[in-house]
Amino acid sequence: MVGVVERLAAIVGPAHVLTDGDLTAAFETDWTGRWRGRCAAVVRPADRDQVRAVLHLCNSEGVAVVPQGGNTGLVGGAVPPDGAVVLVTTRIREIGSLDEVAGQLTAGAGATLGAVAAAVRGSGWEVGIDLAARDSATIGGLVATNAGGARAVRYGPMRSQVAGIEAVLADGSVVSRLAGLAKDNTGYDLAGLLTGSEGTLAVITAVRLQLVPAAGLRVAALVALPSTADAVALVSRARRALPGLLAAELFHESGMQLVLGHASLAHPFGAPGAGAYLLLETSDPADALAPLLDGFDDALLADDEAGRTRLWQHRERHTEAINAAGVPHKLDVSLPIGRIAAFEDRCLALVGDRARVVLYGHLGDGNLHVNLLGPAPDDETLDEAVLRLVIEMDGCISAEHGIGRAKAGLLPLDRSAGDLAAMRAIKRALDPAGILNPGVLFEDARQT
Amino acid sequence: MVGVVERLAAIVGPAHVLTDGDLTAAFETDWTGRWRGRCAAVVRPADRDQVRAVLHLCNSEGVAVVPQGGNTGLVGGAVPPDGAVVLVTTRIREIGSLDEVAGQLTAGAGATLGAVAAAVRGSGWEVGIDLAARDSATIGGLVATNAGGARAVRYGPMRSQVAGIEAVLADGSVVSRLAGLAKDNTGYDLAGLLTGSEGTLAVITAVRLQLVPAAGLRVAALVALPSTADAVALVSRARRALPGLLAAELFHESGMQLVLGHASLAHPFGAPGAGAYLLLETSDPADALAPLLDGFDDALLADDEAGRTRLWQHRERHTEAINAAGVPHKLDVSLPIGRIAAFEDRCLALVGDRARVVLYGHLGDGNLHVNLLGPAPDDETLDEAVLRLVIEMDGCISAEHGIGRAKAGLLPLDRSAGDLAAMRAIKRALDPAGILNPGVLFEDARQT
Repeated sequence: MVGVVERLAAIVGPAHVLTDGDLTAAFETDWTGRWRGRCAAVVRPADRDQVRAVLHLCNSEGVAVVPQGGNTGLVGGAVPPDGAVVLVTTRIREIGSLDEVAGQLTAGAGATLGAVAAAVRGSGWEVGIDLAARDSATIGGLVATNAGGARAVRYGPMRSQVAGIEAVLADGSVVSRLAGLAKDNTGYDLAGLLTGSEGTLAVITAVRLQLVPAAGLRVAALVALPSTADAVALVSRARRALPGLLAAELFHESGMQLVLGHASLAHPFGAPGAGAYLLLETSDPADALAPLLDGFDDALLADDEAGRTRLWQHRERHTEAINAAGVPHKLDVSLPIGRIAAFEDRCLALVGDRARVVLYGHLGDGNLHVNLLGPAPDDETLDEAVLRLVIEMDGCISAEHGIGRAKAGLLPLDRSAGDLAAMRAIKRALDPAGILNPGVLFEDARQT
Repeated sequence: MVGVVERLAAIVGPAHVLTDGDLTAAFETDWTGRWRGRCAAVVRPADRDQVRAVLHLCNSEGVAVVPQGGNTGLVGGAVPPDGAVVLVTTRIREIGSLDEVAGQLTAGAGATLGAVAAAVRGSGWEVGIDLAARDSATIGGLVATNAGGARAVRYGPMRSQVAGIEAVLADGSVVSRLAGLAKDNTGYDLAGLLTGSEGTLAVITAVRLQLVPAAGLRVAALVALPSTADAVALVSRARRALPGLLAAELFHESGMQLVLGHASLAHPFGAPGAGAYLLLETSDPADALAPLLDGFDDALLADDEAGRTRLWQHRERHTEAINAAGVPHKLDVSLPIGRIAAFEDRCLALVGDRARVVLYGHLGDGNLHVNLLGPAPDDETLDEAVLRLVIEMDGCISAEHGIGRAKAGLLPLDRSAGDLAAMRAIKRALDPAGILNPGVLFEDARQT
C-alpha cells in the first residue's frame, strides 16, 4: 500500500494525498456519526484526468475506491471500508457559464449545490432541487445518490435535473455526454444508469444540469385536517388543480408538539387536535388555491417571505426538534400515495409502546420519514419490522437517502431476485474487479 | 428450426405461431417500407409467462428474437434479420384500473397509446405524450424506443411517463417494479436503462404509467418571424414565462408552401416571406401569451378547438405534403437549442442544390426533422454528410426515432469509444448470447 500511496501522490501531488489520521478522520466518518472506517489514504484529484489515473492505478492494484463529495449522506455510502482509498471530488468544482437559452450549465462534480444556485441567481433559471445540506452537498454526490427534497413533487428528484454526465469507470475509461440535448435516442441512457448508483459503477466528474424557470410569486398554506386520508385526497386534487404546486408536506401533532416545545412557539391553530397537517406551496396565484381550501376552516395562508417562513418552520424544524428529544432511528420510505394513510395506521399499531413515532415527509411523492425515538442506537429490531411492513405494502425502503452500507443487508427484501441478478450483472460488467464502493448496495465486499 | 417452431407452438398455442409468408409479411416489413427481413416465425404470446418460456427456449437454442409492438418504428428496429423469431406483444394488452390519487395505471406492453388514452379520458389525467401513430403504437414499443412527440417540451419524452416496468431478460428471468413509487432509491434504475434500449436488453411486458393532469383550456399562436434565431429567442422566453407551454414547433416557408399546395389552402398570413414560423400552444391563459407576442405583427391566436386545428394543420400536414412531393430522406436530429439557427444555415449551404430541404420540428426540444427531397432512395451520401455536421455541432443523430438498424453503422460517429464500450458491456451482461434484436444499435449481428 505504501507504493500505492506514493504513486497516488505522483498523480495528484503530495499535498493532495492525506494519510495522517488527524486529517483523514473527517473523511472516514459520515454526517450522522454512525458509520466510521479507516482508509489507506484520502486522495483529492484536481480534474478528470487525475481521476482517470487514480482509478487506473487502484483498479490495477485491486485497491477499493470510495467516491466522496461533501460527505453529507445519511446511509454510510461514502464511508470507506478499512484500507480503501477515499476519492474526494471537491477540488473539481468549476462551474461553466449559463446557457441562457437552454437553461443549462455544466458543473464539476465537486461544486456545491449552493455554489451553483448562487451562480444562476437572477438569471430567470434556478436549480430544480434544494435541500438543507446545500452548502456542503456536491453536484456529483447529489447525482450519484439521486437526491430528493421538498420540491420533487414539482421538478422530480436529481435524476430529472440531469441533462448529461461525464464519469470515469473503474478501469479509467470515460463516458461522457455533456451537450445537454433534451432529446437523445442514440443508445443506452448511461447518465440515467449512473444517477443513483451510489458510486458503485463510476466516479462522476461533471454534470450538465437542466435548470427550471425560476418560480415567481409563491403562496404557502398550512392546513389542519381530520386525517392523513384527507391530506392525501387534498394533495391529489392539488396536483391536478395547481400546475405550479411546489411542495406538499405532511406532518402530525406529534411532530408539531416537538417543534413548538423546542422552538418555544405558540400553536399556529391555537390548540392541538388535528389528525394531520398539510403544508402546500405553489407558484399559482392565491385565488387558484382558494377553491381547494374551501370547506377547511383551519387553513393559514401566506404570500410574503416572512409569512411563508413562519408557516414552513413547523415542518422544517422537525429534524432539530426530534434530535433534541433523543437519538432517533430515521427511516426514509416510499409508499404508493394511496396507501400512505393505511401505512401510518399499521406502523403506529406495529410500534405500539416500543417507541415514540414521529411521521412526516413529502406527501406529494409518497415519501415518509419515519422517526423512532426510544430504542437503543444499535437495536435495529423495530427499524427492520417497519421496513418489512413498507415492503409488504408495496413501498420501498429508501425513497431519497439511498441504500449505502446502512441498508445493503435489507435490499434483498425489497428488490426481486431477478432485479438483483440484473444489477449484479451490470456491476460486474462495468467494474469487474469490484473496486468501486464495495459494500454499498451489495453487502458482500467484492461483487465478482 | 422446425423443432423450435413446434416448441414455440407448444408454448403459445399453434394459432399464435405464424410461419406462412402471407401472414408473416406484415411483421417483416417496417412502416416506411424501407426495411424487410424473412423471419423463421412470428410468435404472439398471451402473457408474461409465455414471453419467459419463448425467450428461455430461443436463448437455449441461440435463436435471435426481435420484439415488436405496433411496428410503427421508422428506423428498422423491429424488422427481423433472416431466421429470427418475431415476438409480437399485441396480445398482452390488458389495461389496469386507474389509480385516481396517484394518476397512474399499469398497461400491458401491447396496449396501444390510443387505448390507454381512451381508458383515462374524463378522469382529469391524461398520457403525457401523443403522436400520430397512437392507434397502432404500443406502450411497450413507445417505452422501448423512448418515443417523443410535440408535447415533450412540457412533459418530456416517454421516459418521463414511466413509473415502472416489468420486463423479461434474454434468459427468461424477470425484472419488475410496478408499484409506481415517485421516489425510489433502492439500487439501479433498471426501468430507465430499458427505456430506449430498443429491444436489445429485454422484452418489456408491462409498464406502470405516470399520467399528467389533463390540460384544460388551450391557446395556440402561429407567429411569423424574421428568422430561426428570433424563433429560438421567443421559445426561450416562452419557456420561462409560460409554465403551461405544451408545444413549440418550428417550420419554414419551404414546408408551408408544400402544405398549402397539397391541401389547397390560402396562406395564413396573406403572403409568403417570413424567415420562420413558430407554433406555440399553452394551457396558460391567453393574457399570459400576449406580452410575449408584443412587437410581432404577424401572430394568429386561437383559443377554440376549430381555430387551433386550423393553425396546427400547417405544421401537422408537413409529413403528408412532403411525401406527396417525392420520396424524402428523413433525418431526426437534436442540437443544443442555441445552435439550431446556425445549424440550419450550415445545413442549407452543405446541401446546396443537391436536394430540396424541408426543415421543421420540435424547437422547444432542439429536435429538427431534416427532409431531403431529390436523392435516390438508396443514395445516403447526403444523409451522412448532414449527420456528420450535426455531430460536429454537438448534436445527436437520433432525437426521437432511435438508432434501429438504419443508423447502427453511424452510431460510432456519435457516441465516444468509452460510451460504446460501456454499452456493449451492459449488452453482454444482460444478453450474453446476443439473441435480442441483433443488428439493432450495434451493427455486428452478435455482440459477444
